[in-house]
Amino acid sequence: MTTYDPNNIFARILRGELPCHRVFENEHCLAFMDIMPRSPGHTLVIPRIPARTIIDIEPAALSALAVTVQTVARAVKTAMVADGLTIQQFNESAGGQVVFHLHFHIIPRWESKMMAPHGAGMAPAEQLMLHAEQIKAALAG
Amino acid sequence: MTTYDPNNIFARILRGELPCHRVFENEHCLAFMDIMPRSPGHTLVIPRIPARTIIDIEPAALSALAVTVQTVARAVKTAMVADGLTIQQFNESAGGQVVFHLHFHIIPRWESKMMAPHGAGMAPAEQLMLHAEQIKAALAG
Repeated sequence: MTTYDPNNIFARILRGELPCHRVFENEHCLAFMDIMPRSPGHTLVIPRIPARTIIDIEPAALSALAVTVQTVARAVKTAMVADGLTIQQFNESAGGQVVFHLHFHIIPRWESKMMAPHGAGMAPAEQLMLHAEQIKAALAG
Repeated sequence: MTTYDPNNIFARILRGELPCHRVFENEHCLAFMDIMPRSPGHTLVIPRIPARTIIDIEPAALSALAVTVQTVARAVKTAMVADGLTIQQFNESAGGQVVFHLHFHIIPRWESKMMAPHGAGMAPAEQLMLHAEQIKAALAG
């Protein structure tokens, strides 16, 4: 098991030390907008417990995370009126991981529209707030 | 819920109508080599029950699938001596899905080595057999 850095930015979001555009939370998980979206509505889902990669987490906590990914994915697709969803989960730098707290990416997709490249830039806060509200409405609906 | 086509190739693999290079199976899931690997050791994990996308599957079955993805991911990383793993799951054509039975891709990654593009070609059967044996050995070990 690889070392978990308790000062990664998602750990700090979980502790309330950094803000996020929250769309869902429960006892086990938190979901919030990716501030560098690869498409409009790009949402992240993380477990509350410390885990660096998919290999490091307790199976019961991974199950809870997967079910939350499903719940949020359904709402993202509805809210963003997406044709499909790309779900990605990166492990270690070689695997594409940048923040070393386990997370799933939920990326809405539309026919004939490419994803933005990774690191294409920060989205305006108003856009992230709007999409978070739309996704929360779909979760409540 | 979108329509499930019972003649998709993964349904046919589950029924034994088509072969695969199997690495793991249990009551709920099957894991086998992707015949068009994006990197050596690229493995797929699917549920036995019919489900088109991550949105369509029962939460309990999704939990079992996620835990199997973890089990197989750990073995793939060990067997292939990978530096990391990229996990992908595509939903609907717009989301990158090609076979319409829910599946997770487990793609071993190494520092400074790109993934092959999607559809780069079929791997030789001997290579797929070798990697399946290596991953099975890691699962047994």
